[in-house]
Amino acid sequence: MNQDQLDRYYMQMALDEAVKGRGWTNPNPMVGAVIVKDGQVIAKGYHHRCGQGHAEVEAFRAAGDRDVSGATMYVTLEPCSHYGKTPPCADKIVEKKIGRVVVAALDPNPLVAGRGISRIREAGIEVVTGVMAEESIALNEIFMHYIVDKQPYVLYKSAMSLDGKICTAGGESQWISCEESRVEVQALRHQYMAIMVGAGTVLADDPRLTCRIPGGKNPIRVIVDSSLRVPLTAGVVATAREIPTIFACTPKADPERIAAFEAAGVQVLILPEDEDGHTDLKKLKDALGQQQIDSILLEGGGCLADAAFRAGIINKVMFYIAPAVIGGKGALTPVEGAGIASLKEKVALTDLQVRKVGCDLCVTALVEPQERN
Amino acid sequence: MNQDQLDRYYMQMALDEAVKGRGWTNPNPMVGAVIVKDGQVIAKGYHHRCGQGHAEVEAFRAAGDRDVSGATMYVTLEPCSHYGKTPPCADKIVEKKIGRVVVAALDPNPLVAGRGISRIREAGIEVVTGVMAEESIALNEIFMHYIVDKQPYVLYKSAMSLDGKICTAGGESQWISCEESRVEVQALRHQYMAIMVGAGTVLADDPRLTCRIPGGKNPIRVIVDSSLRVPLTAGVVATAREIPTIFACTPKADPERIAAFEAAGVQVLILPEDEDGHTDLKKLKDALGQQQIDSILLEGGGCLADAAFRAGIINKVMFYIAPAVIGGKGALTPVEGAGIASLKEKVALTDLQVRKVGCDLCVTALVEPQERN
Repeated sequence: MNQDQLDRYYMQMALDEAVKGRGWTNPNPMVGAVIVKDGQVIAKGYHHRCGQGHAEVEAFRAAGDRDVSGATMYVTLEPCSHYGKTPPCADKIVEKKIGRVVVAALDPNPLVAGRGISRIREAGIEVVTGVMAEESIALNEIFMHYIVDKQPYVLYKSAMSLDGKICTAGGESQWISCEESRVEVQALRHQYMAIMVGAGTVLADDPRLTCRIPGGKNPIRVIVDSSLRVPLTAGVVATAREIPTIFACTPKADPERIAAFEAAGVQVLILPEDEDGHTDLKKLKDALGQQQIDSILLEGGGCLADAAFRAGIINKVMFYIAPAVIGGKGALTPVEGAGIASLKEKVALTDLQVRKVGCDLCVTALVEPQERN
Repeated sequence: MNQDQLDRYYMQMALDEAVKGRGWTNPNPMVGAVIVKDGQVIAKGYHHRCGQGHAEVEAFRAAGDRDVSGATMYVTLEPCSHYGKTPPCADKIVEKKIGRVVVAALDPNPLVAGRGISRIREAGIEVVTGVMAEESIALNEIFMHYIVDKQPYVLYKSAMSLDGKICTAGGESQWISCEESRVEVQALRHQYMAIMVGAGTVLADDPRLTCRIPGGKNPIRVIVDSSLRVPLTAGVVATAREIPTIFACTPKADPERIAAFEAAGVQVLILPEDEDGHTDLKKLKDALGQQQIDSILLEGGGCLADAAFRAGIINKVMFYIAPAVIGGKGALTPVEGAGIASLKEKVALTDLQVRKVGCDLCVTALVEPQERN
């Protein structure tokens, strides 16, 4: 292998480290680091969890007493140059006399980008950047979005038949998608900091909205319920002391009801109404971003999804498509609500990707930024 | 290239010939033939049109005076052994002293399969079968289906947004899919012998249902209109003398109206009612098969599609999926009607294939045979 190939080989190893932090690092990025000296991997490390050591620090810790001077450090994201919960990694790299640093992606924060690298270069250490940058950026699509303007990254996920139905005319929806797809959705619940549904979904299904992967992390539950019509006996309310739960309502919600929800351990966000008299979803997104929620998995129902698309708050969509035709004028579809009159008003998608998951197809796409967003 | 590779190379050439007959050979298959002698292609031929010469005959004609004795003939479908509109090709091959015959697919008709090959082998000519059989069978999926029990092959085609809408809540549908997809659909209209829609589609859009490809073939138009509610002024009725047009109704249709349609050049098929009081689609499929219609492109609308899925008459589906979200409870979907209560009743699809067409995705799948079919 030549140097380029070696660099990619070890950077892939660092990416494999990084991904171990998935679901635990938010709102921090997933980062991995590998230290190589004389063709030997001396140590590996990754950012385990927000508030704990950065990947570089973990790698140095793993190296223990071994001499890392002159070694090459591979790190999937630009080392930090600022004092946060930990001292700057750039300083640590200089102090440890690392000989060469290979970086995948630069820090997307324009206030920080390049500073960590400059500090290392100024110390006379060789720095190579951009090795597998695309892979590192894709891994951290949530962080890359959130860090810029502190807006959560919103993914709308649905599971439907090929003819666009999320349940039968009789209301049966369990299960349209195959087991492999449902396992993936559980992994998304682990990965995303919050899960959002409308009051209709809670009233219809009384879901827990937890992550059912053993050892997985439950997302913060966000219920959009303009008039707080969900009963206090609902599962999400009853378990609000164990799993953080936010209800978003408008000023028309009954203050006594708000007090009762709060007494049950729910955080109630009172937000302005949008022009249709419902909870203003842009304001809700802002409010959740202010709580350092970097990512929201929107699971429906169709009315909330329609409102969210119209409000321009969705960044990405993921549709699991089952190999079946369900039919029925009365069967629900992934996006309902009032809809649009003219095709000019449609939400345009880009970067369509499709893959097979079990017997289903999974189509992902990015929402094209809109004027109104 | 070794012999296997050479055989595949020339068979691909024969398949490229075969496909030139697409849309014109029905209800016959597309067949191509190539004659190779001493490493030189002497002649190529294909079945141009039902009633005209078979591919082998065309290839011999193209060879003219040249000596084909001892040559290898590549042919994409087993040469015929029966007297039809033309004498048996197997006899012609023997008579021309071909030295070796390479065949892709066997004739699917169990009464014929293998006979053409036997006749050639009995004459002492080497025969190799199964070279690119899969490709030849895929090319002739319509023929392979039709020839067995004279039932037309029914493809349901739709174009929708990723959230399963075929128009906006305001009724706008032109155009959801991209131009490349729409060109493909025109090619399907050329390829399929008949196009089928419901009365609702005619009433809503007054379509011509013609093939707009220059030099393309218009499909026979089949309108399912149980009570003959389409007006005599509709485009499909007004042009019925130029383009064969069939209306399928039930005995409840007014006899005077039937007479008026027939006077306009429409063929009216009076069929029994199904259990919902609509035209029995299985009986309609039978009736169209008896008219040597080997293929039907079902274009909607959603109610007819639902009835067709429930009746089990659909063999294949093709969904063009545009990169857009339309939303709206009131927006139409590809399959409407009464639908089903339980997921057990869903129509299961198999062999999902997906490809990009312009900016759209195109998903095709086969309908799994059902008990009720």
